[in-house]
Amino acid sequence: MAKDAARMKLSDLGEFPFLRRLRGRVPADPCVLLGLGDDCAVLSLSGTTLLTTDAMIENVHFRREWTSFSVLGEKAFMVNASDIAAMGGEPTFALLSLGVPQECEVEDLDAFFDGFVRAAGACGAALIGGNMSAAPCLMLSVTLLGRAPHSVVTRGGARVGDDLYVTGTLGDAALGFRMLQEGRNTADAQAVKARFLRPTARLAIGWEVAARGQATAMIDVSDGLLQDLGHLCEESRVGAVVEAQALPLSDAYRALLGDRDWSLALTGGEDYELLFSVSAEHRPALDAVAQSSACSITRIGRIVPQAEGLNVRGPDGRVYTPAHVGYDHFRLA
Amino acid sequence: MAKDAARMKLSDLGEFPFLRRLRGRVPADPCVLLGLGDDCAVLSLSGTTLLTTDAMIENVHFRREWTSFSVLGEKAFMVNASDIAAMGGEPTFALLSLGVPQECEVEDLDAFFDGFVRAAGACGAALIGGNMSAAPCLMLSVTLLGRAPHSVVTRGGARVGDDLYVTGTLGDAALGFRMLQEGRNTADAQAVKARFLRPTARLAIGWEVAARGQATAMIDVSDGLLQDLGHLCEESRVGAVVEAQALPLSDAYRALLGDRDWSLALTGGEDYELLFSVSAEHRPALDAVAQSSACSITRIGRIVPQAEGLNVRGPDGRVYTPAHVGYDHFRLA
Repeated sequence: MAKDAARMKLSDLGEFPFLRRLRGRVPADPCVLLGLGDDCAVLSLSGTTLLTTDAMIENVHFRREWTSFSVLGEKAFMVNASDIAAMGGEPTFALLSLGVPQECEVEDLDAFFDGFVRAAGACGAALIGGNMSAAPCLMLSVTLLGRAPHSVVTRGGARVGDDLYVTGTLGDAALGFRMLQEGRNTADAQAVKARFLRPTARLAIGWEVAARGQATAMIDVSDGLLQDLGHLCEESRVGAVVEAQALPLSDAYRALLGDRDWSLALTGGEDYELLFSVSAEHRPALDAVAQSSACSITRIGRIVPQAEGLNVRGPDGRVYTPAHVGYDHFRLA
Repeated sequence: MAKDAARMKLSDLGEFPFLRRLRGRVPADPCVLLGLGDDCAVLSLSGTTLLTTDAMIENVHFRREWTSFSVLGEKAFMVNASDIAAMGGEPTFALLSLGVPQECEVEDLDAFFDGFVRAAGACGAALIGGNMSAAPCLMLSVTLLGRAPHSVVTRGGARVGDDLYVTGTLGDAALGFRMLQEGRNTADAQAVKARFLRPTARLAIGWEVAARGQATAMIDVSDGLLQDLGHLCEESRVGAVVEAQALPLSDAYRALLGDRDWSLALTGGEDYELLFSVSAEHRPALDAVAQSSACSITRIGRIVPQAEGLNVRGPDGRVYTPAHVGYDHFRLA
């Protein structure tokens, strides 16, 4: 009987009984005056509040056959948490706006919520509101709030002479996307596919470099390093040089593409690593952060005057200006 | 040249140049530390904050041939503002998560944002963040914040003996939806179509009955009177009797359906009127609110013990329990 209930389609159960199932899952928090189940959630907030919203749409951002609903729920949270990380904040409260095809099974939606709530809980955040509506494909739009007791780090504070750092490794998610499209299943392919399917928001490092006042500007790498560095440079009115050889590549990336193919590391989207600029005087301090962190931090270049533009220096020492910087949903290549 | 630019498709212009166009439109507000254009918006908030999110999806909630993009933008704001009204709050800040088909023209998106920002501005709210992504159909997910300096009114405070009131007229939007489907264009059809396409959030009345401490419970009528009254009764652990003859019907509704067909007034969705319960001792005060308001307020029934359930009393004095209470996206009729 329980099994039958789980296998029910949403069209058998109905929207309201389904939403009622979620209500017991909102954790108690003194800031939440009212959670799921009324016209609005009601919060008692003070201080600096961060707000971001991001969506994942079936057959644009993911295919259902590539992922479980639980992993999809995790990612829907993480891509938003990454924006909070990029300001140096920590996530607090989430709202979910779901578009769901009629034939969706309650079991799958339960798994989606499980993944979402688990990822949120691991990052200190709670689901406090949302809505659900019929849709021709799965659409997952998340709004995430965050807090930042210290100054937030914008994209606009980089200064000429600053070092450029990036967390983790680059290009894996885009390579994973390619492996998913090609149906490759080697150990290396699995490793990069996991980077695409289960990204991690770099909350601890973002918080650390913001709280210590080290980062002058920060952004998360969601649309490709050069594209996002371009945004940082534009907002800061500076240029930048990236050293191709310094780019952090994973073992799987090297095994699949070789040591000298930086294309996806430079332009591949969805890595959700943090890119930030730091005054060169903080180099020793940054090394200490890197050593105490579970995630690597790599110096990949430096900030230059705006007139010099955005350039990549190859291993031969030659500097070239990239023609194609990253991913834009609406730009046809 | 300007005309050519307006007629460009989003795929010609690209996401980032388009989003840049929006940035100049965020009004200055001391609470907005950072608006559009970074990883997060940054607000300085204090006190009670309301949060709601609601989505409109093409061919589920609207058809493109029924509406202009500008009117669509207004409605995307208003359906969210209605949730703020239902708590007795006022809207403050909005985030927009858009899914847009590749072939969409920049001119149409500009019109959508015009409509959204105009409706928001008229209600005292500002667009402070968002994202845009490719999608197979138009998907408009809005998150709206609000404030409530007084106590918020939940769905859960109705008491046995309270009167039940509703603003405006009921059933017009559902009838308008039917007229749109049938392609009817008489003056009466136009009037109810406008109620579907251009709803108004009843912010002033919601605020008034909350600030005066009159409403014991409140909800907006978005899924049909009986469905939403059912939610209010469930949360308040009470029952209710609705007098069919007291239901406020517009002239257009009476002309199209007659005086004695209450079906759509009882079960039609998308009216975005407010339904609230008030202690009978406040009747004279409510009459005063009604007389000073631009929108009518009608007493339609009363709260009864939970064991009596939710009933409608017809003009013959007979009470019957409705089988079908309203609209659920996922329930097949």
